[in-house]
Amino acid sequence: MNIGIVGLGLMGGSFSKDMKDLDKKSVIYGQDKSSQHLKSSFDLNLIDFKLDDNNISELDLILISVPVDETIKILPKILDKVGNNTIVVDVGSTKSKICKSIANHKNRRQFLAMHPISGTENSGPSSAVAGLYRGITNILCEVDKTDPILLNKVLTILNNLNMKIIYMDPDSHDEHISYVSHLSHVTSFILAKTVIEKERNEKNIFDLAGSGFESTVRLAKSSPFMWTPIFLQNKYNLVEALDKYVKNLNDLKTKIINDDQESIISDLNNINRVKKILGGINNKNEK
Amino acid sequence: MNIGIVGLGLMGGSFSKDMKDLDKKSVIYGQDKSSQHLKSSFDLNLIDFKLDDNNISELDLILISVPVDETIKILPKILDKVGNNTIVVDVGSTKSKICKSIANHKNRRQFLAMHPISGTENSGPSSAVAGLYRGITNILCEVDKTDPILLNKVLTILNNLNMKIIYMDPDSHDEHISYVSHLSHVTSFILAKTVIEKERNEKNIFDLAGSGFESTVRLAKSSPFMWTPIFLQNKYNLVEALDKYVKNLNDLKTKIINDDQESIISDLNNINRVKKILGGINNKNEK
Repeated sequence: MNIGIVGLGLMGGSFSKDMKDLDKKSVIYGQDKSSQHLKSSFDLNLIDFKLDDNNISELDLILISVPVDETIKILPKILDKVGNNTIVVDVGSTKSKICKSIANHKNRRQFLAMHPISGTENSGPSSAVAGLYRGITNILCEVDKTDPILLNKVLTILNNLNMKIIYMDPDSHDEHISYVSHLSHVTSFILAKTVIEKERNEKNIFDLAGSGFESTVRLAKSSPFMWTPIFLQNKYNLVEALDKYVKNLNDLKTKIINDDQESIISDLNNINRVKKILGGINNKNEK
Repeated sequence: MNIGIVGLGLMGGSFSKDMKDLDKKSVIYGQDKSSQHLKSSFDLNLIDFKLDDNNISELDLILISVPVDETIKILPKILDKVGNNTIVVDVGSTKSKICKSIANHKNRRQFLAMHPISGTENSGPSSAVAGLYRGITNILCEVDKTDPILLNKVLTILNNLNMKIIYMDPDSHDEHISYVSHLSHVTSFILAKTVIEKERNEKNIFDLAGSGFESTVRLAKSSPFMWTPIFLQNKYNLVEALDKYVKNLNDLKTKIINDDQESIISDLNNINRVKKILGGINNKNEK
């Protein structure tokens, strides 16, 4: 199978590894706006050839793994050039604006919107890891707008990667993911910011911070270029989630100020249910 | 060495394991207000004898590892009964109120306030793990108020556990730890609460959440009985930290609403410094 990857970072590079693992004969064409990333991808054997306008039409599958604002610019141009048997997929963490951006494209049926729930806080081709796509949940949107034969080609690959497939409409996807993913990133970034501001002498953080802090701010290491466009594309859902989060913070603050021990313990006990809910997530996604 | 442990949870139980590892001849006396925890501690070989009022005076070292509000009640009573060679230490995540609670006790010099920066989100005797105290940072407060010979006895043990010792006054400890630890717990608890409230059908969280969410809410699994008293004892520092955190959240929200992409990217780039700062924390504390 001839595969194209647009954007050779964590998601794109890891896709190459998992596709080569599925079928050693896969030939990977890659493209990145950074010439350094392109070179690294050749060095790391993530790609076999450079992807350019001349070979797009010959590809079976093209994965778009760039920041979501770039996806909106690149996706229509790629769809302009696909061959009859080419299916284009994206891996963006937002789906509404991406789906809208090609809703009326003449080759709409050669696109499948997906969101593999996987990743790490690292970025760039060197962060690519084998198995990133294995056994994970993958959300597919508007599958009825994709050509059934091309859709089936993708589903076969996703099945071979043991993915759990969920079907959602783009708006529901963005609404739910704003809470479960985008809000986590915001809270983590801002926790790190607040502590860094307090501890001008950074040595202090290092000395006093335990693994609890480290875990809670892990996402604050994520790429600003990946996440800023996500926050902006999903701003209405994210702002709603943030408002609820801040309201809940202020409610707890009031209880703390009032020494309302009983009510806080009761709240935290309820929140502890997350232990049971999350029981199955460990080891399910990114390692 | 005869060692007493008051509170047979994660911190107390793990201390038993690490002390027996240092010296197989250590004899451990244990006490817990839960008869179930006491029984489990015998079953798990965490303790050899029950600690009671009659044997306190014969002990070399007593570790108090109960919620910080209980520490304030128990510590003076334990100090009432110590023998001449007994040193009492606590492992609480707050230090000001605990130090004040025994400031005028006749046996103040037989107490050392400490805060080992270690732990997991689990609780109870079954959560005890060997090595929890090994190689970690331990903050000691008011060492000048502890008898030098008894202090030296503790320092020898801490050195044998390869701990990194930091000396702080109790107020500074509580101020800094409110940011680096207590705030992380609040943000994590409230993130979990906000998402649980949104997703009444808990199955959805499980399906859509990735390891990023799991990492950010890990601390939300922590014990309400341990953490509520910490929040209340350190409320002035914590409320200040929370106010700054909410201000920073609202600043980012405004930038998101205004589509201020450049400024957000610049902020997140600055926050990314946490990657370098935290580089050394991985594997330093709890595994």
